[in-house]
Amino acid sequence: MPTTRRYTLTISCPDRSGIIAAVSGFIARHNGWIVEASYHTDLETQRFFMRQEIRADSLPFGLAEFHTQFSGLAGEFDMSWRISDSAQKKRAVILVSKQDHCLNDLLHRWRSGELEVEIPCVISNHEDLRGFVEWHGIPFHCVPTQGKTGQDKAAAFAEIARQFDAEHGDIMVLARFMQIVPPDLCARYAGRIINIHHSFLPSFVGAKPYHQAFQRGVKLIGATCHYVSDELDAGPIIEQDTMRIDHGDTVEDMVRYGKDIEKAVLARGLRYHVEDRVLVCGNKTVVFR
Amino acid sequence: MPTTRRYTLTISCPDRSGIIAAVSGFIARHNGWIVEASYHTDLETQRFFMRQEIRADSLPFGLAEFHTQFSGLAGEFDMSWRISDSAQKKRAVILVSKQDHCLNDLLHRWRSGELEVEIPCVISNHEDLRGFVEWHGIPFHCVPTQGKTGQDKAAAFAEIARQFDAEHGDIMVLARFMQIVPPDLCARYAGRIINIHHSFLPSFVGAKPYHQAFQRGVKLIGATCHYVSDELDAGPIIEQDTMRIDHGDTVEDMVRYGKDIEKAVLARGLRYHVEDRVLVCGNKTVVFR
Amino acid sequence: MPTTRRYTLTISCPDRSGIIAAVSGFIARHNGWIVEASYHTDLETQRFFMRQEIRADSLPFGLAEFHTQFSGLAGEFDMSWRISDSAQKKRAVILVSKQDHCLNDLLHRWRSGELEVEIPCVISNHEDLRGFVEWHGIPFHCVPTQGKTGQDKAAAFAEIARQFDAEHGDIMVLARFMQIVPPDLCARYAGRIINIHHSFLPSFVGAKPYHQAFQRGVKLIGATCHYVSDELDAGPIIEQDTMRIDHGDTVEDMVRYGKDIEKAVLARGLRYHVEDRVLVCGNKTVVFR
Amino acid sequence: MPTTRRYTLTISCPDRSGIIAAVSGFIARHNGWIVEASYHTDLETQRFFMRQEIRADSLPFGLAEFHTQFSGLAGEFDMSWRISDSAQKKRAVILVSKQDHCLNDLLHRWRSGELEVEIPCVISNHEDLRGFVEWHGIPFHCVPTQGKTGQDKAAAFAEIARQFDAEHGDIMVLARFMQIVPPDLCARYAGRIINIHHSFLPSFVGAKPYHQAFQRGVKLIGATCHYVSDELDAGPIIEQDTMRIDHGDTVEDMVRYGKDIEKAVLARGLRYHVEDRVLVCGNKTVVFR
Repeated sequence: MPTTRRYTLTISCPDRSGIIAAVSGFIARHNGWIVEASYHTDLETQRFFMRQEIRADSLPFGLAEFHTQFSGLAGEFDMSWRISDSAQKKRAVILVSKQDHCLNDLLHRWRSGELEVEIPCVISNHEDLRGFVEWHGIPFHCVPTQGKTGQDKAAAFAEIARQFDAEHGDIMVLARFMQIVPPDLCARYAGRIINIHHSFLPSFVGAKPYHQAFQRGVKLIGATCHYVSDELDAGPIIEQDTMRIDHGDTVEDMVRYGKDIEKAVLARGLRYHVEDRVLVCGNKTVVFR
Repeated sequence: MPTTRRYTLTISCPDRSGIIAAVSGFIARHNGWIVEASYHTDLETQRFFMRQEIRADSLPFGLAEFHTQFSGLAGEFDMSWRISDSAQKKRAVILVSKQDHCLNDLLHRWRSGELEVEIPCVISNHEDLRGFVEWHGIPFHCVPTQGKTGQDKAAAFAEIARQFDAEHGDIMVLARFMQIVPPDLCARYAGRIINIHHSFLPSFVGAKPYHQAFQRGVKLIGATCHYVSDELDAGPIIEQDTMRIDHGDTVEDMVRYGKDIEKAVLARGLRYHVEDRVLVCGNKTVVFR
Repeated sequence: MPTTRRYTLTISCPDRSGIIAAVSGFIARHNGWIVEASYHTDLETQRFFMRQEIRADSLPFGLAEFHTQFSGLAGEFDMSWRISDSAQKKRAVILVSKQDHCLNDLLHRWRSGELEVEIPCVISNHEDLRGFVEWHGIPFHCVPTQGKTGQDKAAAFAEIARQFDAEHGDIMVLARFMQIVPPDLCARYAGRIINIHHSFLPSFVGAKPYHQAFQRGVKLIGATCHYVSDELDAGPIIEQDTMRIDHGDTVEDMVRYGKDIEKAVLARGLRYHVEDRVLVCGNKTVVFR
Repeated sequence: MPTTRRYTLTISCPDRSGIIAAVSGFIARHNGWIVEASYHTDLETQRFFMRQEIRADSLPFGLAEFHTQFSGLAGEFDMSWRISDSAQKKRAVILVSKQDHCLNDLLHRWRSGELEVEIPCVISNHEDLRGFVEWHGIPFHCVPTQGKTGQDKAAAFAEIARQFDAEHGDIMVLARFMQIVPPDLCARYAGRIINIHHSFLPSFVGAKPYHQAFQRGVKLIGATCHYVSDELDAGPIIEQDTMRIDHGDTVEDMVRYGKDIEKAVLARGLRYHVEDRVLVCGNKTVVFR
């Protein structure tokens, strides 16, 4: 969690020699001070990924001029790239249902300054958590989905999307939202919707994963933070973790223990995302921790 | 790892009140000294499970007389039960292919006295590991399976079973044997064949689990020790563990790291089994660690 | 987290044969239904420890009559024992300073019903957290300690003790209270004050443990939940955990990551305590998880 | 574990901007292909650390010419640097006493090709492990230390140093050698002697750490791999890990479980060292995993 303002430059491009030299040379020519640098080559796709944090005060120009100056080099190497400014916090819209352990965890990290995001609003399909959210001074919008099917459900999601856009949301966080996002929204916000699934994927896709885990008699339970894609619980995985259980644990125990993993995994995954540490590569992720 | 000889009594029966009192009362009447006691009620099946270690020198009789004395009480509660004697080590026949990390680990635990089993022989479908096994003074039998199908493969497994029986094997340990055990042997030795599968089941059943894990982009890999049943990689799970990987790890890295989890998980699972800590309950296990 | 009311009986006494039989026989004679049972013999002190959960509705009498009925047997075996009723929640008084991650975590577990305690009040030496606590409908008392020494500090702690007693507190939880409890209170509430220390004890006792860890260059950081004794950070340990760090992590990173371990370790330790799972044995604990 | 030959360049120097650009520019000018790159700035000492793996076949020259070509740039930035060749395996001399779990583990990793070192000899102060070592075709030297003090012990260590030098050893691995290395050897081979200590340092320095851990009643035990310095168990830490124990575990159980952590931690620490992933920074290490 850097205290000085910095720019984060993330790049992916076809692999070849000289990329690091070209980029770090560019930065050095402008006296840029690199405070963190990470690289990865994906051998299957032969793509190169890099992420660099540069002290903002070391460069003689801002982001607009950076774009202009860097575009030639980016074109030469056929780069997909973006640069972000730590002074410009990302806007995370949180979606919840009734379970509030992830919401409570994220809001605490936010109000203690640990999670550097703006939270323009929380959206829920129930009223239950309004009081807690509003105590934080964050607007709470209720968009009911229960009992709805087909067109009505689509309308609810259209309303959610409308609010997300109105709030200029950067990332939609499904903090145990328990609703399946329709394919059109998955496509529209690809790489911008993060979900926490309460199993160690690909085990126990779909509903009631702790019940599935209990029936199978596994000795560890887990949670998975991933980008949402149109195939259920099959999007690129950002972060996972597991914890030990034993034969004495009921489904209720698993649900209770599991909350702790869910909170931790979602918080880490979201932090990686907002710090531009996650680069998507096909259906996988490069996570520069 | 107890240093004094003890009897281990394991029981499962329909749950009702008074079972612990009846069993511990029986042991107390004979001045038996319980050194370890564990209980579990499975709520789904309403069955009760218990395990007690009793100092052998505290009882006035041996196992034969224990059977006679205890059978009345066992019948009254409709118990499935067995009692074992720590002085009578279980006989573990180890099956391997060419990968020797689990074999090396088990043989070291055996020769250092940590794993209290007899190893009457090691059986392999290749000659590669003969020298290492024989250096330990353990007979090595080669029963080729490669290139065989149908009747020939069945004959190879029949030969393995014949050797296991001839050696009075108690437990067959598939230490990366890489062959699918035919259903008739699975049935004949139910609860007596232990396998190590190199994934966190139920994820990545079958062949090349690390390749499957790599393709899916998971952030943890795992291993599972389970009893073999006629459904591939679907038998009762005894022990599992996971470890963290990241985007920089190739399939080869996963294979290498994974060996350490495989060794640890198989060694723990086998120890639980030979110490009579594992009771099967449907397709799940109760493990009294 | 049992849903039916139950009594929890915890016992320690000199080890001998027949204890389990006597206790379970007593319970069985009154048709008591044991739902969980744990035993341990401490070999150094030759003391025996046991814990049994009994369904309240299976016994023909309440706690008062249980005391009368059981006292003869307890005397015979020279037992230290107590029995608690799940319907009678323990009263936990939480002490905090300005850091609120543990408080936020405990209050969420409390309001979601996961942590079964009463919280009669929160006491702090600062005003900062009043709003958050009072939002929960929990009284907040500020007892300043800053800038005080000697007699004035003693007076502050006397006031804290007075409030704790007035609220009929069962357990005092130092949730990052950052003050050293005076010896007379340690003695008066022995086994009733729980602290979370932000290191893996016995490493890094005292102030600024993350700074100490950073200076030493350890590769894991940890947290320890323990009963407070008159020797600083040296009381009986209830629970500990660690997490991996690396050379790239600053002290600030450690502080941030460490919060997650502190929360988890304190929440587990407190739960073990309020469920009567912790029995003190000299300067160590038996924890029947 | 790369399959193609590569050079590994490790550098430390005073931090300033432009270092990455200068080094990667140098490599790019010679068409070098960087396959792995890691950077770190130590904020306390303001020193910069970097490690780069370069495909050997991508450079137009070998190591000698690399030295010549690179020395100008190295001088300009006041670099401490070295470059190693994966085709030139490091020579690890292993020292053991009677406990062989670490030795067994290292030799298996060596003979399976997982640990890429030469093992010119194993040195022990007992004869016990001769047979096992010689079975691997590795010379075994016995240098007794038992019952010796003062000059005699110094002579034994002088003999060990003589053999290490004669074998052109790169790294001396104390695989549970259980002897304190004299200060003159610590100084002479600074950064070249690796020890595995069977506790989570700085807890439980010195003899019988598991007994110390048992007495303190900790809930986790650990192991630490570190460079040996003249202060006992206080050298730069390379790797650590912990595992959970509970009140039921005796010292003997801890010793047994602990072996598994010791093996794993030593193997990882040694691998990091031989792959030039460890850079010493004062009494701490930078480990580019």
